[in-house]
Amino acid sequence: MKILIIGGNGTIGKKVAERLGQKHEIIIAGRTSGQVHVDIADKSSIEAMFEKVGKIDACICTAGTGFYGNFYSMTQDDMMPGVQGKLLGQINVVLIGKKYLLPEGSFTLTSGIAAQHPAKNGACVAMINGAVNSFVLAAAQELKNDIRINVVSPGLVEDSKERYGELFPGFNYAPMDKVTNAYVLSIEGAVNGEILKVYS
Amino acid sequence: MKILIIGGNGTIGKKVAERLGQKHEIIIAGRTSGQVHVDIADKSSIEAMFEKVGKIDACICTAGTGFYGNFYSMTQDDMMPGVQGKLLGQINVVLIGKKYLLPEGSFTLTSGIAAQHPAKNGACVAMINGAVNSFVLAAAQELKNDIRINVVSPGLVEDSKERYGELFPGFNYAPMDKVTNAYVLSIEGAVNGEILKVYS
Repeated sequence: MKILIIGGNGTIGKKVAERLGQKHEIIIAGRTSGQVHVDIADKSSIEAMFEKVGKIDACICTAGTGFYGNFYSMTQDDMMPGVQGKLLGQINVVLIGKKYLLPEGSFTLTSGIAAQHPAKNGACVAMINGAVNSFVLAAAQELKNDIRINVVSPGLVEDSKERYGELFPGFNYAPMDKVTNAYVLSIEGAVNGEILKVYS
Repeated sequence: MKILIIGGNGTIGKKVAERLGQKHEIIIAGRTSGQVHVDIADKSSIEAMFEKVGKIDACICTAGTGFYGNFYSMTQDDMMPGVQGKLLGQINVVLIGKKYLLPEGSFTLTSGIAAQHPAKNGACVAMINGAVNSFVLAAAQELKNDIRINVVSPGLVEDSKERYGELFPGFNYAPMDKVTNAYVLSIEGAVNGEILKVYS
């Protein structure tokens, strides 16, 4: 399969690319790295990326983050980069990308444990992840040509331990091999419209 | 209690206002009707509304809708009014309104069945409702002074049968008294961080 991984040089994307690269042709898209550059917060950048990449069998998105910070001082301005990126950006990847997917292809988006178990200071990220999960339930019903869509909802991943561990007291780490497995299941399996939770 | 109902002249808000009005002082806010006018898609309008209303015991939001339409032609532009309104608007009601809530007060937002069981053509609404649900899980952990927050997630409500019934083939109707009960539970009960589902 020819698989596009948006965010393929990020913490999760890197491991997913490594794993899927053993069997498939991988194209990595990133903001500043990878074979093709993309800013998922910008529709025209997504369009240009797909135009450059052409027809593919699968599209994974592991790009985008959201605001973490004090709930009492958080404003809409804090939330907008995440809304434009991880939320609307991932949705635009599907809305724009669907015409580039070959029949029986698949999308795999990324949400996160916050949708169900938000950490302290994580209301913005919770909201974004909840939105992506519910969008996927709906999109799975709509996509034609046997195209499937799933979303991987990881917990705090092992490889983020040093960078983000302090922000998530009491959260278990999700092992990287379990997280990458969920992307493999979405792409090589038959699941559709699933929220693939990998919380620990 | 002094209760502000944003969207209090809408299909659901009207019945909630009627019911809660039997025991409480109700202030209705609406885009073009009610005692105070507000456009929840506009932050400064929300600020002006709270400034005018002053301290309250409870704030209900039943305002805001989202795009229904063909998934294959849907674009971000179609989604933005709902994102600005029902999604970010309801979040801004909480972020801005929290300083106007008296201790032991409560917020009650509104999402909908689409978060979990999207109807055909309902991907945008699904996404909005999922976002609001997960935001509430997070906000419930953050609000101080014993302020609670819940979200009512109604199915297709009885009173929308004529207007929207055709859009939801095979969906059961949620009786209005059960829907209003959920708002009463949120306000007069002790529940916090709950997604109060009233699907039928």
